[in-house]
Amino acid sequence: MCPAKIAKGAERGYVIPIGGGEEKFNAPIVLQRFVELCGSTEARIIIIPTASQLKDTGACYCDVFKKLGVKDVESLTIDTRADAQNESYAAKILECTGIFMTGGNQLRLSTILGGTPIAQAIRRANAAGVHVAGTSAGAAIMPEHMIAGGPTGALPNEQGVTLTPGLGLINKVIVDQHFSQRNRLGRLLSAVSYNPFAAGIGICEDTAAFIDPAGVIEVVGSGSVTVVDPSEVEYSSMAEAKEGDAITLIGLKLHMLSHGSSFDLNTLKATPAKIQVLH
Amino acid sequence: MCPAKIAKGAERGYVIPIGGGEEKFNAPIVLQRFVELCGSTEARIIIIPTASQLKDTGACYCDVFKKLGVKDVESLTIDTRADAQNESYAAKILECTGIFMTGGNQLRLSTILGGTPIAQAIRRANAAGVHVAGTSAGAAIMPEHMIAGGPTGALPNEQGVTLTPGLGLINKVIVDQHFSQRNRLGRLLSAVSYNPFAAGIGICEDTAAFIDPAGVIEVVGSGSVTVVDPSEVEYSSMAEAKEGDAITLIGLKLHMLSHGSSFDLNTLKATPAKIQVLH
Repeated sequence: MCPAKIAKGAERGYVIPIGGGEEKFNAPIVLQRFVELCGSTEARIIIIPTASQLKDTGACYCDVFKKLGVKDVESLTIDTRADAQNESYAAKILECTGIFMTGGNQLRLSTILGGTPIAQAIRRANAAGVHVAGTSAGAAIMPEHMIAGGPTGALPNEQGVTLTPGLGLINKVIVDQHFSQRNRLGRLLSAVSYNPFAAGIGICEDTAAFIDPAGVIEVVGSGSVTVVDPSEVEYSSMAEAKEGDAITLIGLKLHMLSHGSSFDLNTLKATPAKIQVLH
Repeated sequence: MCPAKIAKGAERGYVIPIGGGEEKFNAPIVLQRFVELCGSTEARIIIIPTASQLKDTGACYCDVFKKLGVKDVESLTIDTRADAQNESYAAKILECTGIFMTGGNQLRLSTILGGTPIAQAIRRANAAGVHVAGTSAGAAIMPEHMIAGGPTGALPNEQGVTLTPGLGLINKVIVDQHFSQRNRLGRLLSAVSYNPFAAGIGICEDTAAFIDPAGVIEVVGSGSVTVVDPSEVEYSSMAEAKEGDAITLIGLKLHMLSHGSSFDLNTLKATPAKIQVLH
């Protein structure tokens, strides 16, 4: 699914996949930046806790955002496809300045929200300028193609990843999260090598890719974002590989980007941070 | 240390790092290929079991090579720096057609052999056309710069690898082994990013990089060889990074190469296998 169309004169909101495990209390650099983007004390934030099966996930994030100075924050209880038909929820989503999707299981997000008024509202809100952040499962769901699962390891293989349709807020990247912590390069390479049209971005915990409306990613957080750029791939053996075969992949470009670095999804150019601001 | 000089009219032997855990009995594709290169039944193979602290490692490899049809195979007991002064051993090394260094601890190889007549003989033999293979620790010791240790993980960091001087049979690559099995991309990236003059090659178990005298690597085995080509690196934050910092590395090229694929260390060009021969 392509991102929803932008109305004349409007500008799309940011899309902000977070690698999970973002700091919430002590120097919460990722969440702080999201709040600033959404209007600081004037922000109106809607939380979608659907990925989580813990009852208090939404309430916990409400507290976190309140501590960050947000007065208007609400978590929407959407646990079933029936809940996801709720038109008053959809209206709230269209009226906020920022949407935050929690972690949990991304297949809960896709199976419960897919094709519902809530999914449509998130897509339309983002096209109208509302910023959408998601952490862990909430990050995975954002692109057109979502990584639903796959084995750990550094190398790609023929059954190295399970791809499913995502929310389609962005279609230039495939996102993986808990990236170095769970050793997921192999499954990101598998995803990218099936069809090298999209870049793979692997996001560490406590780290986010702030993707602006023009398609420039800025890295924010204590870890790094690994960009796998397959635009110059000359050869992939994925089509011929049988189960267990080692894969040949020739011509990938790889960037490891830390806080303040950026990557332009249009020009495919990476730029280091000007100043290391984390010291 | 640069590779030893080649005498006029001579051709250097192959340098063959193996990722460890090579199959020894059932379809031992890597060892079979090494034996063929060294003259098949006419091969004269010397085993250097110094890396291992197990008494029977040399004898076991003698049996393996005999089962592969080699009549003339001998393991040299070199357990101390005094042993490594043995000139009759050095003479045997200069007279064989293939040298095989076993696995174990690469710091035993470097501390026991470094600067001795045995190390000189291995270097001179290779320059005179003798093929040198090494598995695991025996692979790590081969280049000018040896990876002695380092943490596991997918990402580089400022203290991400311990480099020590190696045998210097080749100086265009840095080798890591048990590569995917022990999740070692991070330390290979660390090694390469300190000084991006050499390519990093990460070798899986039961897999070898057959590096011919012209500097072309052919991949042999059931796993893959990951080539990290830093020749187009635009930026590395290694010089400024403090302990624990995420590293920025921009512009790496990455190839995953399976059986029959090749990589030319002169042109830095990777080529896929023509036929997948492992089926």
